[in-house]
Amino acid sequence: MQDIILSAPSLKSVIRCGAGAFQKYAPQIPENAFIITDSNVSALYGDLISSTFKSAPVFVIPAGERSKNYKVLIKIFEKMTECGITRKSTVVALGGGVVGDIAGLAASLYMRGINIVQIPTTLLSQVDSSVGGKTAIDFNGVKNVLGTFYQPSEVIVDPMFLKTLPAREVRCGLGEIIKYGALDGGIYNTLIKNQDGLFDLAFLESVTADCIRHKAKVVSEDEKDLSGARKTLNLGHTTGHAFELYYKRKSHGEFVLIGTYYELYIAQQSGVCEKAYADSLRSLIKKVIKKIPAYADAEQAACVAKFDKKNDRQTSVSIVAPAEKGRSEEIVLPLEKYTRLVADCARALVEEQ
Amino acid sequence: MQDIILSAPSLKSVIRCGAGAFQKYAPQIPENAFIITDSNVSALYGDLISSTFKSAPVFVIPAGERSKNYKVLIKIFEKMTECGITRKSTVVALGGGVVGDIAGLAASLYMRGINIVQIPTTLLSQVDSSVGGKTAIDFNGVKNVLGTFYQPSEVIVDPMFLKTLPAREVRCGLGEIIKYGALDGGIYNTLIKNQDGLFDLAFLESVTADCIRHKAKVVSEDEKDLSGARKTLNLGHTTGHAFELYYKRKSHGEFVLIGTYYELYIAQQSGVCEKAYADSLRSLIKKVIKKIPAYADAEQAACVAKFDKKNDRQTSVSIVAPAEKGRSEEIVLPLEKYTRLVADCARALVEEQ
Repeated sequence: MQDIILSAPSLKSVIRCGAGAFQKYAPQIPENAFIITDSNVSALYGDLISSTFKSAPVFVIPAGERSKNYKVLIKIFEKMTECGITRKSTVVALGGGVVGDIAGLAASLYMRGINIVQIPTTLLSQVDSSVGGKTAIDFNGVKNVLGTFYQPSEVIVDPMFLKTLPAREVRCGLGEIIKYGALDGGIYNTLIKNQDGLFDLAFLESVTADCIRHKAKVVSEDEKDLSGARKTLNLGHTTGHAFELYYKRKSHGEFVLIGTYYELYIAQQSGVCEKAYADSLRSLIKKVIKKIPAYADAEQAACVAKFDKKNDRQTSVSIVAPAEKGRSEEIVLPLEKYTRLVADCARALVEEQ
Repeated sequence: MQDIILSAPSLKSVIRCGAGAFQKYAPQIPENAFIITDSNVSALYGDLISSTFKSAPVFVIPAGERSKNYKVLIKIFEKMTECGITRKSTVVALGGGVVGDIAGLAASLYMRGINIVQIPTTLLSQVDSSVGGKTAIDFNGVKNVLGTFYQPSEVIVDPMFLKTLPAREVRCGLGEIIKYGALDGGIYNTLIKNQDGLFDLAFLESVTADCIRHKAKVVSEDEKDLSGARKTLNLGHTTGHAFELYYKRKSHGEFVLIGTYYELYIAQQSGVCEKAYADSLRSLIKKVIKKIPAYADAEQAACVAKFDKKNDRQTSVSIVAPAEKGRSEEIVLPLEKYTRLVADCARALVEEQ
């Protein structure tokens, strides 16, 4: 077990990483807690929840991305006000990225902000979304368009939860891990060295801490996403989000992987990334998703990227492109060029398969 | 005209005070603005809005406290997403406290926070609510229970708008001004000196700047309401809010005045405040509201105070009591004692009238 400190200007966040973290730290959460979890976690860990958090009220949201909306948020607030949750209470987010994002937003708004502890239960949320204080819901077809920056006082990252995680969910987490590989030379080396054992639990536990350490450093420098440092964490996400909104059926982590694959193509075609390095990242991606979808209507799907909140003018699209080991680079492309390159990548995939 | 600087840890806010501030600074707001106003302001200043903000989208909420709810907030977000508002846009809150509170919340949540300029049009919002970055909506019968701390980059306080303000709205603003008189020795002296000309526009313009200066200092020291400094600004509000929720018919500023009147009684009975000083504040209050209501069911109404978000345990009530010129003091009373004193004050008012 190890503690990683994220010293954001607004609050110092402590991330407890490793086996045994839940058993040690969850019981220390003050008694007046309000637990937010989802139907999957509640079914698997109902007994653990009641034995750990005793009589604390538990709000269960339906599992899945579609719960990340304002109607669910309002139901959470109804329960919080009915339970008489006060300024001194602690919200506990026990679940994956959706639970973490909506519970974080609820905690940040309730009485203008009460304490929140994140206990991520999926690989994706452990490795990325539970750390750094970004909270959000989707609205009117725009992902994460309503939210806050609000640091959890504590994040408890225990690999115990990964044992019950479906393989697909592990793939999603590996999507974000490979993203960190494209940003951080050390993580890249670790991934290349372990490329035949990416799904191994002991490996995942150790690389998770590496990714959190990378993210904690970036967020400490640029909590509010202003200087550009934090923007690098969106590698793969511009195209990933666009596909996610257009095709819907896969989950966020898978779309990040697919988005990274397409953006590698764009980076290479734009002369930002060497073929050999791009190939090595592509081969990592293919260890996780065997067959990258060659979307027939990739061009239309990519158009959705112009609605991404990171793109201020709607005539151009910005992506964070892998450049070389340990370095990424922002490229801004005219919308037509971006969509054409996405379509080219899809065609190249068809030829390849 | 004068600038007052509020140096909050999260953002430096500039408050432009005085006649001519609107004409000088409103046209400098960047073009990609999104205007939020209410039906009263829109009816009175529709031409000024369109000549100043040109083609910027304008969202008009129904005037009145009842608009401060999540349904109106969602409608604002619908319009913002439909208009393609981006991270670089500026929300302009043109109106009273309700507009400022809900527009501030909308700006703080949209894309995790975009720029907001407050242009308060009522005395109450000029003197108090537009400054300091507290945003909120009411929910499930609890006032201001959902909100954020989010500083406007600029506040434009122009007395021009007071010319069309109904006398009742001026009374409401004087409610907050007298509150500042109970906190700040300088403002107290000014009020006593001008007690026969409280409604005079030139006087209001000058005392407004004094109140803003006081508030800017307090908020710079305690932006997030943690150290106790900012809590002093709730003088009169515990009882005022309780009455507001129970009786509903008057408006916020009137209830603050009435709350201050009742809390002066409590402060005196608790030995915190001398009779002569309490009398001088009471006489100021009576210059604004001739007849303080002697509520027959004041005891039940006061019970609502236990739900106030400032009261962590629901068995006691905290009030900020005027103590002596330039000094207030927090007193925490058991719920029964608090409600009994409120009822005693109501009875004393009956005897007096």
